[in-house]
Amino acid sequence: MTLIEKCKVLNKASSVLATMDTKYKNQALQEVVRSLKEHEDFILEENRKDVEKAESNQMKESLIDRLRLDGKRIDGMIEGIKTIIDLKDPIWKSNEVWTLENGLTVSKMTVPMGVIGIIYESRPNVTVDAFSLALKSGNCILLRGSSTSIHSNKALVYAIKEGLKRSSISEDVIALVDDTNRAVVKEMLTMNEYIDLVIPRGGKDLIQFVVKNATVPTIETGVGNCHIFVDATADLERAVDIIENAKVQRPGVCNACETVLIHKNIASVFLPKLYDCLKDRVEMRGCDETQKIISVKEAIKEDWAEEYLDYILAIKVVEDVEMAISHIDTYGTKHSEAILTEKVANANTFLRRVDAAAVYVNASTRFTDGGEFGFGAEMGISTQKMHARGPMGLNELVTVKYIVQGNGQIRE
Amino acid sequence: MTLIEKCKVLNKASSVLATMDTKYKNQALQEVVRSLKEHEDFILEENRKDVEKAESNQMKESLIDRLRLDGKRIDGMIEGIKTIIDLKDPIWKSNEVWTLENGLTVSKMTVPMGVIGIIYESRPNVTVDAFSLALKSGNCILLRGSSTSIHSNKALVYAIKEGLKRSSISEDVIALVDDTNRAVVKEMLTMNEYIDLVIPRGGKDLIQFVVKNATVPTIETGVGNCHIFVDATADLERAVDIIENAKVQRPGVCNACETVLIHKNIASVFLPKLYDCLKDRVEMRGCDETQKIISVKEAIKEDWAEEYLDYILAIKVVEDVEMAISHIDTYGTKHSEAILTEKVANANTFLRRVDAAAVYVNASTRFTDGGEFGFGAEMGISTQKMHARGPMGLNELVTVKYIVQGNGQIRE
Repeated sequence: MTLIEKCKVLNKASSVLATMDTKYKNQALQEVVRSLKEHEDFILEENRKDVEKAESNQMKESLIDRLRLDGKRIDGMIEGIKTIIDLKDPIWKSNEVWTLENGLTVSKMTVPMGVIGIIYESRPNVTVDAFSLALKSGNCILLRGSSTSIHSNKALVYAIKEGLKRSSISEDVIALVDDTNRAVVKEMLTMNEYIDLVIPRGGKDLIQFVVKNATVPTIETGVGNCHIFVDATADLERAVDIIENAKVQRPGVCNACETVLIHKNIASVFLPKLYDCLKDRVEMRGCDETQKIISVKEAIKEDWAEEYLDYILAIKVVEDVEMAISHIDTYGTKHSEAILTEKVANANTFLRRVDAAAVYVNASTRFTDGGEFGFGAEMGISTQKMHARGPMGLNELVTVKYIVQGNGQIRE
Repeated sequence: MTLIEKCKVLNKASSVLATMDTKYKNQALQEVVRSLKEHEDFILEENRKDVEKAESNQMKESLIDRLRLDGKRIDGMIEGIKTIIDLKDPIWKSNEVWTLENGLTVSKMTVPMGVIGIIYESRPNVTVDAFSLALKSGNCILLRGSSTSIHSNKALVYAIKEGLKRSSISEDVIALVDDTNRAVVKEMLTMNEYIDLVIPRGGKDLIQFVVKNATVPTIETGVGNCHIFVDATADLERAVDIIENAKVQRPGVCNACETVLIHKNIASVFLPKLYDCLKDRVEMRGCDETQKIISVKEAIKEDWAEEYLDYILAIKVVEDVEMAISHIDTYGTKHSEAILTEKVANANTFLRRVDAAAVYVNASTRFTDGGEFGFGAEMGISTQKMHARGPMGLNELVTVKYIVQGNGQIRE
């Protein structure tokens, strides 16, 4: 099928799915769980083709690791679906019902978006997560994974469709774009008639390509140049632990810390502690003031803007919370930002003034995540301000519809 | 100043405005009220220049009427500001605060978008409405009105800035794009670094131009091909009143009715009643079945898709509620749709299945409006599904920020 044919099928399925009761959606997800188990060998076999191709193309080991599936990872996908089954259905709910003077009752009800497109890079578990979140929120999903995981994605979508066939929900609610050419992505981004929302999930280049080329509404995700500001009153032992966690626990993710800002009053005491903790694992790059205290490389201007996604940390000594906020304003990507302080006024200033999806006081930035926030799973982390900001779970995949009920009202 | 210079000024002002307490925002709006009164003669004088130019260009009288200001219309703008002063501040509120197992408290707080751009056609009152809504919601506003109202808009923005100068809020929170060239609109639509949201408010062509050319997030507004379906059980007298209201009361607006769908069982009784009511004021165009009952012009395929914005009404006889929904699916613009029925099951089917910003039972479609819904004023009516749908008031001009407060939490 061509892309437009697939979109037409999804579109048709979406108007049926939109009003499906929760029990049918949950039963369908149960069937998908069963089918993924039944097709486990087939999925692993197909995944091996992708891994072998990646190896022969000398892909980086860390990327091959993201691509590789095994029994445990398939169990992880299944656990993800089970979590989503247990979550509340976000559709046809309202927190806002009111009656006008003329007697009209207005209810602002949640409804599905319709058809959601997702464009993502290598991890095949995104295929299953995105499908499950979409189904539970009454949306059809158009998946466009990376060419490097095409066999895995085809196998997963096959298993999902086999599961759906045994349920009350049509297998047409999911479609995979198996054309691995980039031209098809461009086409997808302008199908306003059929696609209600496209979410790019991947590196900076992919996201910029989508923002530039889309006429379909999109949500930017992911790029995180996150900062931790250690204020003069911070608990310094705790500060070392938090920075270590935010930098080292998993440096390749978007909520990892990339730059530490340190109040000048504590720099000479704190920096040696931080240095001792990180020196064997992290390459530190410091401003002039930092270099006077600990022996690290020089941080140049580019370092402040860089999302390393690696064992590298930029360090800058600042005058006060104002200078910290101003640095974050200039170089941050509005993802996750933290202040470590015991002073209430500074905590509040930072919370109010820093413009980011998530702003922390006395905690690691690593918590910006749908799972950690209790959303069950996430479709990505929005770093823009339209519609959804931060981790996008079920509640971010809905729109609203005003229901207006009367008994003959006309406008004066 | 060039556009980019204006944007930089707005951007700087927006970080101060974002955390301003409600009392300062309300005082500033009071000063703007005072200043508009003081500058009334000047505003009317400048408006006369626009009107004279429009007359010499032989603009349609209905459009000149939209453009023309008088004392009463300025009072109307002032009343609009006073309503907005009385509305609740939408900023730094939360309906969602929860604590994770590890003790972190997460609060989803409302915050301003930042800088909102609006591109609009001739009515000068939009200048004042958009500014007031933006200010109350903590947003800076970049206005790009039509070249036909440039003198009026300049005078209004001058008066607003004079008012702001007497308040605690910087006059830099508002800027008018006085370059009347279309190239500047294109530039505005790609200033992702400085503008958080652009709202086009005007005809189909403007909105399509914006959707095609924007990389900045945008919200489509306005185009309304609205339907009223008269079901077999409808109260027919009431149905005539409702259709008359939805068609005739103000035909040039987006929530006016353009097509009536009529259940075949009542067509022969209902159509003559409708015809008698409308025949002197409305040109009716009907399907074959309609033409067998009343003497009207033929409706061709293009009629079903047309937003007349005029004293013209298309009429189609349908088999049942399913066929009505399917017609709306094909030709509707997801704005406002109504069913007139006494049968609960059909009302519910229509409410659930019709995909539109507002869906009505037994009322005129003319109520889809920020003022009517009780929002005080509106920035436009969104006909897309991202971020806001239907009338956009103060609550639609905000985004969120997750505040996460801990005592040293790190991620396991």
